[in-house]
Amino acid sequence: MFKMNENYLKLPGSYLFSTIGKKVNAFAQANPDKKIIRLGIGDVTQPLAPAVIEALHKAVDEMGKAETFHGYAPDLGYEFLRKAIVEHDYQARGCQISVDEVFISDGAKSDSGNIGDIFALENKIAVCDPVYPVYVDTNAMAGRTGEYNEELQKWSDVIYMPCTEETNFAPELPSKEPDLIYLCFPNNPTGSTITKKELQKWVDYALKVGAVIIYDAAYEAYITEEDVPHSIYECEGATACAIEIRSFSKNAGFTGTRLGFTVVPKELKCKGTTLHSLWARRQGTKFNGAPYIIQRAGEAVYSEEGQKQTKEQIGYYMKNAKVICEGLTLAGYTVSGGVNAPYIWLKTPDKMSSWEFFDYLLEQANVVGTPGSGFGPSGEGYFRLTAFGSYENTLEAVERIKKL
Amino acid sequence: MFKMNENYLKLPGSYLFSTIGKKVNAFAQANPDKKIIRLGIGDVTQPLAPAVIEALHKAVDEMGKAETFHGYAPDLGYEFLRKAIVEHDYQARGCQISVDEVFISDGAKSDSGNIGDIFALENKIAVCDPVYPVYVDTNAMAGRTGEYNEELQKWSDVIYMPCTEETNFAPELPSKEPDLIYLCFPNNPTGSTITKKELQKWVDYALKVGAVIIYDAAYEAYITEEDVPHSIYECEGATACAIEIRSFSKNAGFTGTRLGFTVVPKELKCKGTTLHSLWARRQGTKFNGAPYIIQRAGEAVYSEEGQKQTKEQIGYYMKNAKVICEGLTLAGYTVSGGVNAPYIWLKTPDKMSSWEFFDYLLEQANVVGTPGSGFGPSGEGYFRLTAFGSYENTLEAVERIKKL
Repeated sequence: MFKMNENYLKLPGSYLFSTIGKKVNAFAQANPDKKIIRLGIGDVTQPLAPAVIEALHKAVDEMGKAETFHGYAPDLGYEFLRKAIVEHDYQARGCQISVDEVFISDGAKSDSGNIGDIFALENKIAVCDPVYPVYVDTNAMAGRTGEYNEELQKWSDVIYMPCTEETNFAPELPSKEPDLIYLCFPNNPTGSTITKKELQKWVDYALKVGAVIIYDAAYEAYITEEDVPHSIYECEGATACAIEIRSFSKNAGFTGTRLGFTVVPKELKCKGTTLHSLWARRQGTKFNGAPYIIQRAGEAVYSEEGQKQTKEQIGYYMKNAKVICEGLTLAGYTVSGGVNAPYIWLKTPDKMSSWEFFDYLLEQANVVGTPGSGFGPSGEGYFRLTAFGSYENTLEAVERIKKL
Repeated sequence: MFKMNENYLKLPGSYLFSTIGKKVNAFAQANPDKKIIRLGIGDVTQPLAPAVIEALHKAVDEMGKAETFHGYAPDLGYEFLRKAIVEHDYQARGCQISVDEVFISDGAKSDSGNIGDIFALENKIAVCDPVYPVYVDTNAMAGRTGEYNEELQKWSDVIYMPCTEETNFAPELPSKEPDLIYLCFPNNPTGSTITKKELQKWVDYALKVGAVIIYDAAYEAYITEEDVPHSIYECEGATACAIEIRSFSKNAGFTGTRLGFTVVPKELKCKGTTLHSLWARRQGTKFNGAPYIIQRAGEAVYSEEGQKQTKEQIGYYMKNAKVICEGLTLAGYTVSGGVNAPYIWLKTPDKMSSWEFFDYLLEQANVVGTPGSGFGPSGEGYFRLTAFGSYENTLEAVERIKKL
C-alpha cells in the first residue's frame, strides 16, 4: 500500500496567496457592485516593455520555420541570455561570476523551492521573520522543519530571525547555528534592506559557521539608495558560501511570462563536491529549461531599449509606493518600506490582528492587502501593501483608506 | 556545517542525454568536416504549426497592452486550456476527468520528476526496464532507491520489470509488491504498447495491492492501432489508482516551447487525503505556472486547424519511422517499435554493447542514436533511433547505416 508524504499534512492551511484569492473571490461574488482594488499579491500590472514584445514576436517567427526552429534548450539555458546576465548584473558591479555559473529557470519561486533538493534533510534552516512563505513551506514539505506549533505559529526546527520595529526590520545574527540561511533583500514583505557592510557580516558569519546563504534578490531593481548591495557577490567571500536567486518577474513584469535564474558559484563546495554539479544534475534531470521565446524576451530586457523601458516601469511602481507611504503617513499609519522596494509595510491600527485588518480593509475600503502574519509570527500586527497596481487605482485605494 | 544531499553522489554518471551531448560535441569538434545526423535525443525538428504560431503572436500582443496583460496564472493553469484538454483528450474518449483535475505545467519531465514529492520516501517503486531514465534518477535523488550496484546496473530497492524480446517488450506484473508503478506507453525507448485489456490488468493489480500507477502518456498521439489505449482512464477503476502525465512536446513539437499537464483524479486517496490536494499544494508552493502565451499556444493545438496541422507533423515523423524500420530490416537488423511510437528499438549487431554500437555508429556513419543500456540494464545490447529528424536526414542516415 502506497504512502503519501505526511509532511504535507503538517502545513498550516493553504499557501497564503491561495487563501487570499479565495477570500477575495467570495467577497467579489457577494458584492458584485463593489470595485475591488488589489494591492495584495505582488503581481505586476504594467504590460511587457516594447523591446520585450518585439523580441517575443521575432522569436515566435523563428519557431515557425524549420531553419530557425528551437527544440530542447541547452542544460543551463541559452548562452546569449547567460552572457547578458553576467555582463549586466555581475561584471558591471565587479562580481566575479562566470557564464556557466548561471542557471536559467522558469522563475524564482521554483528555484527557491527546488534548491532544497540538493541539501541533506538534516540541515537546519534560518529565516527572516516575517518573510516570503515559500522558504519555510517548501522545507516543511521536505520534512526539514520539525513540528508546527499552532499557538506560536512556529516550526520546532526552524531558526526564526525576527525583523521588527526594534531591529529596523533587519535580521540579527542567530544565536543558534544554522546550516542554510535564507536572506531576501530588499525584503519581501517589509521592503527593508541592509547595507553592503551589514551584508558582509552575514557572509563572514556563513563562512565561519559553514553555512550556505540562499540569497533572494528578486527585488534588486527597486533599490534606490547607494550603499545597498544589488547582489550578495558584491561582498567578499560570498562565492564560497552563497547561492543567489533572481527573477524577471518584478524588474521586467514577467510574473505571467516566467523567467528567472540562479547563480551557483563553483567555489561553493561540500566535502570537495561542488554544489554547482549537484544543481546541474537536479536541473538536468527534473527540468527541461525555459521556453526559447521567453529566453529571447529575457535577453531583450538587457538591451539598451529594454533597460530604458523597464526602468521606466520600475519608476512608475515606485511613484505608487511614494503615494502609499505619504498618504498612509498623513492618515496616521506607521509605515516603512517603499524606498528600495515596491512593498509598504504598515502597522495595523488599534491593535487589530493582521487578518482582522485584512477583512476590515476588504469590507470597508474594498482594498486587498496581505496580512503580515502570513509571512511569519513576527508579521502579526502588520500588513503589506504593494505598489504594483495602476497609478489611478493606487491613488483611489489610498483615498479610500484615508477616509476610513 | 551544512550537508549536501548525498543521494546525488550515488547516481551513476550524468544524466544520459547530457553524456551523449558531450560525446557528440567532442566528435564534432574533432571532425568539423563530417555531417552528423542526430537521431539520438527525442527532440523534434519540425517548426511549430501555423495555428500555434498565430496564437503565440496574438498572446504576445495581449501581453503588450495593459488592458489585456496577464500576470500570475491561476494555480492549476488557465481554464481555457484545461477545458480544451478535458474535452479532446478525455471526454471524447469516454474518460470521466473534470477540468479541476488537470494541472498545467512546463512539461512532462518536470512533472514526472516532481510527482515523487507528494509520496513518502519509504514507498517502493517499480519501473519498466528499459525506460525513460528520469523515473529512476529522480527517485534515487530523493533517496528512495537504496544502493546502486555498478555490475548489475541496478538499484537495490527498485523493482525492475524487464521488457525484453521474450515479453514482446512489455512488462509483466512484478513478483514483489510495489507502491508506485511507473508505466510509459507507448514506451520510451522501445516504442512498444499494450492493449486496453492488458492495461486493465495493471489497473486491477494496482487497486488490489494499493499501488499508484504513474502513467506517462507523452507519446499517445503516435498510436495508430485501434485497441491501444490513449489514456489509462479508458480502463475501469483507473481514477482510483492512477496519475497521468502528458506533454505537448511530441504531439505538437513543444520541446523548446515547454508545456505539459498532469491529471490527478480526486478519487485517488491515501487515508482519506486526496493526492489532488497534495499535488495542488506542491504546485501552488513550488511552481508559478506556465507562461500565459504558451498556454494560449497549447489551446491552439486543440483548435480545428491546430489538430489538422499537428496530425500532419506526426504523419511526417511516422513516415520517418517507417523508413528506418524498413531500411534497417533490409540491412539485416532486428527491429521493433516505430508503429505506435516515434522510436525504433534495434538489436545491436555482432553482440556489440550498446555504447560500443553508439561509438561505432557515430564514428563510422556519423549518426547519433541512444544506447539502450542508458534506459536500464535490460536495454543492454539494444539501441534507440528516433523518427524526429527531417525526412532527408533520416533517409541519409538509413543509407549510411545500410552501407556499414
